[in-house]
Amino acid sequence: MTDAPSLRGPVLVVGAGLLGTSVALACRKAGLEVLLTDTSTEHLRTASGLGAGRAYDGQPVQLVVVAVPPDHLGTLIAEQLRAMDAVVTDVGSIKSQPLAEVLATAPADVRRYVGSHPMAGSERSGPLAASATLFEGRPWAIAVHEQADADAVGLVRELVEACGGVPLELTPEEHDQAVARTSHLPHLMASIVAERLVHAPDGHLALSGQGVRDVTRIAAGDPRLWQQIIAANSSAVLALLDEVEARVGAFRDAIASGERSALGALLAEGVTGTRAIPGKHGGPPRPMSSVFVAVPDHPGELARLFADAGEIGVNIEDIRIDHDPGRPVGLVELVVSVARAEHLADALAERKWDIHR
Amino acid sequence: MTDAPSLRGPVLVVGAGLLGTSVALACRKAGLEVLLTDTSTEHLRTASGLGAGRAYDGQPVQLVVVAVPPDHLGTLIAEQLRAMDAVVTDVGSIKSQPLAEVLATAPADVRRYVGSHPMAGSERSGPLAASATLFEGRPWAIAVHEQADADAVGLVRELVEACGGVPLELTPEEHDQAVARTSHLPHLMASIVAERLVHAPDGHLALSGQGVRDVTRIAAGDPRLWQQIIAANSSAVLALLDEVEARVGAFRDAIASGERSALGALLAEGVTGTRAIPGKHGGPPRPMSSVFVAVPDHPGELARLFADAGEIGVNIEDIRIDHDPGRPVGLVELVVSVARAEHLADALAERKWDIHR
Repeated sequence: MTDAPSLRGPVLVVGAGLLGTSVALACRKAGLEVLLTDTSTEHLRTASGLGAGRAYDGQPVQLVVVAVPPDHLGTLIAEQLRAMDAVVTDVGSIKSQPLAEVLATAPADVRRYVGSHPMAGSERSGPLAASATLFEGRPWAIAVHEQADADAVGLVRELVEACGGVPLELTPEEHDQAVARTSHLPHLMASIVAERLVHAPDGHLALSGQGVRDVTRIAAGDPRLWQQIIAANSSAVLALLDEVEARVGAFRDAIASGERSALGALLAEGVTGTRAIPGKHGGPPRPMSSVFVAVPDHPGELARLFADAGEIGVNIEDIRIDHDPGRPVGLVELVVSVARAEHLADALAERKWDIHR
Repeated sequence: MTDAPSLRGPVLVVGAGLLGTSVALACRKAGLEVLLTDTSTEHLRTASGLGAGRAYDGQPVQLVVVAVPPDHLGTLIAEQLRAMDAVVTDVGSIKSQPLAEVLATAPADVRRYVGSHPMAGSERSGPLAASATLFEGRPWAIAVHEQADADAVGLVRELVEACGGVPLELTPEEHDQAVARTSHLPHLMASIVAERLVHAPDGHLALSGQGVRDVTRIAAGDPRLWQQIIAANSSAVLALLDEVEARVGAFRDAIASGERSALGALLAEGVTGTRAIPGKHGGPPRPMSSVFVAVPDHPGELARLFADAGEIGVNIEDIRIDHDPGRPVGLVELVVSVARAEHLADALAERKWDIHR
């Protein structure tokens, strides 16, 4: 068995947008030499100015990271494979399509290509949004295909670890199925709910609560990017849409027939689904409880609340602020472990906070 | 024109759960005498012990508030109308069905019935979860039907204002249409996305991000309550489900045909929908921007962040904490107005916070 190769650099990053520049910054932070290229001189200059690396001028590199939108991904990966004797990876949202393009246009070199996908920061864009710590603690999928060279896989794994990510190996097909379910379908469903609000009769949307805000939040993502992502994962997404159509039909039949237990059973399956999502830091979902505090909308009030919570010593796992029309009072929801909720509520109430138990 | 009646009390609250006890507490806080009744002696004793009022023993009252789950709402409203010469309201999630039951069983008294619905606190339950300030600044719909007596409407409006709510008058049909769109459809869609996670292959859900958590959050609500709500609003919900089915079909056709511009147009309509939701405090949506800060998961770190933000003087409109598997670092998203985001980011960076721009 050969020793796994060590990631020594140089690393060439193709595409100095948000992800490319962040990978570059993370690699620089890890002590690696980084070269950059981008069709936009401005992006290149900005990324370089941020300390992400210097402009590529033809030297040999150990690893190439292709960080461009889905439409050009396969083409650029194949170009790099033909031009360099280096391992090539990418950071795109979908993995089967670029692999298929490589198999079609650079089959002799496909063993040096191991695609990957960091689950980080997709709503923002451009090099100025980049950060060396963007990937810290985040899952980063490595798409291991049948012809992938083991050393190439190892090198990409080292890249992920150098950037602080959590490597998760799966096949390109598994990856695309997974993100269809955890990212692409939710995006489409959020978009459908949001579109129904566009022509709501006057005054109806005044009855909006936190629920519809949560459901539709991700629907605000850039359509030009999302149409590329979804188009590149069309078969996995279409399969899920078929399942959704069936599910909508099941709800419709249960509601129309007045079959209450059938409706309740469908809803209960949704509850089960919410419990399947991994908890914070990737552990199993832990039982949480919420403490609701009404906080006047003055600067400093939130700080005071968190200072008190800090002194009380209960760790806050999640926070939500509810939007209240008409009055400048916000309902802050502090999500804490079930075991600590009562203590937090009591202790905050003692400090004169307005607790909604 | 007669003078509008003045809300003087006594107020009888039927049902000492979360909403009923909260209405009772708010009325007590407003200086009104409150009587309570509930089929559960324990709920009654608890609510009374919290200072929500005393047990009803037959005295005349000015206003009755029926606060029971949808299935018994119409029956109990009609009972109260027949038993009392008082204005009767309720706080249920749907308004047409109880009105229809009253028209069928107590038609002579329907002018004294004006249903209402406070948009507050539906995920928690029981008198211990109640609060006198639950309704502060929240929309509270008043369902004005054709036969409603103007003085009765005025009295319910005063109840809403006494409880700190923001009264919104609309017809029962308009109300049910509105909540079908802003609450019931989103609930069903969240449930459908969540149910698709139940049988995900091993390891796939490790690729979950904040998006799927946001979309599915409300799907965790109690199925026994939600089946009542949805069943009681079936025609409005069914109409929207038909529209959703058509929309799913449109997405499916655009994706299957590879028609990129059609897919992009559908997604863009969803973006428009997200901008239709009212902003904080009921105003028009204001352009917001997010500042992302990586915060180590130690007690006190969040407090320190908010103390700094408070000193910097930028008002935080919303907060989200992203969940990061594997590493104890949380990405905190501070939502602030577009005009202040750059300043907040710069100032926090100066204080050594790890900003992901």
